[in-house]
Amino acid sequence: MKTSVISVTTGREKVVVDITEEVASFVAREGDGLVNIFVPHATAGVAILETGAGSDADLLDAIDRILPPVDDLYRHRHGTPGHGADHVLPAWIAPSIVVPVIDGVLALGTWQSIVLVDPNRDNPTRAIRLSMMGT
Amino acid sequence: MKTSVISVTTGREKVVVDITEEVASFVAREGDGLVNIFVPHATAGVAILETGAGSDADLLDAIDRILPPVDDLYRHRHGTPGHGADHVLPAWIAPSIVVPVIDGVLALGTWQSIVLVDPNRDNPTRAIRLSMMGT
Amino acid sequence: MKTSVISVTTGREKVVVDITEEVASFVAREGDGLVNIFVPHATAGVAILETGAGSDADLLDAIDRILPPVDDLYRHRHGTPGHGADHVLPAWIAPSIVVPVIDGVLALGTWQSIVLVDPNRDNPTRAIRLSMMGT
Repeated sequence: MKTSVISVTTGREKVVVDITEEVASFVAREGDGLVNIFVPHATAGVAILETGAGSDADLLDAIDRILPPVDDLYRHRHGTPGHGADHVLPAWIAPSIVVPVIDGVLALGTWQSIVLVDPNRDNPTRAIRLSMMGT
Repeated sequence: MKTSVISVTTGREKVVVDITEEVASFVAREGDGLVNIFVPHATAGVAILETGAGSDADLLDAIDRILPPVDDLYRHRHGTPGHGADHVLPAWIAPSIVVPVIDGVLALGTWQSIVLVDPNRDNPTRAIRLSMMGT
Repeated sequence: MKTSVISVTTGREKVVVDITEEVASFVAREGDGLVNIFVPHATAGVAILETGAGSDADLLDAIDRILPPVDDLYRHRHGTPGHGADHVLPAWIAPSIVVPVIDGVLALGTWQSIVLVDPNRDNPTRAIRLSMMGT
């Protein structure tokens, strides 16, 4: 298994960050296999989404509706108000996803991008582990 | 890695389509390993669910409650009214799942089926990539 | 592929059960690879979450808000009132997740634990299949 940890700058706002290029570079020249994208953080997730047409911002709005960042809904409270919601998010948007790789190329659809979903304003950088099981 | 793309007819309504048989055929005689089911579309997901007892229709209702198909909630608008919700769905119901295979048989529980979740009425057929990493 | 089924006691309440130790024992001395955690039940999921600081209980509350355990929302009704919600849950919190393993150690972040999410009060024990693809 080839494995590597990359670093992504997320800043101090809730963000969806497109990491497709980084994953594509990692699997280039690796033949066929499955690549796992794994975020070793308790307040972020990984998703596959169309980016650039508004859905990334739409997702952040949906997260606020589905898991309201309101302190009194959560026992786990520290940091920025509503941060308890960030700790529940990874159960719904998991920190792990698998994408097939064919001849060193991600087998994504035309409109799919791999994104880091990070509602947590308290961590300005994030690690992501990429792992490729080839044949 | 053995890999193959199948085509599924989803029609013009929101649907949950049972694809267990197609995946079971793909892994038959493949020994032990992990099969990945991946949908290369930006408005559909893959899930594991009991089918045939109403939960498939219950899931479609839940999607409409959790991600209301109402244009004014989404920046990404085109096609059928409420289609912006379809573009947010894959963050919550991911287009990728892994199922263990033992001696060529899916290691599903008695009541589990693998399903394509497709709220998008604008695409009547869908591709699904099946990939098996064996040992 | 190394594979094994473990049994977890969940009792008669809605619970989040930390299974990190069981998975860590399973992968110990297995080198590098990907471990899949798979629950062969139609009313439970697997998640990666911080435990011990309230987020496990916060998640159970969030499940009740997002998928209300109210009979009239679901066609699939049997067992405990509101059980129809349990059958929809696995579409949102999937029964399958993959975690990278480096030199026999789970590559989890400091605050991440692997948990079984089981809102179903009708099943006091659950099986979980662990499968490791190594190199």
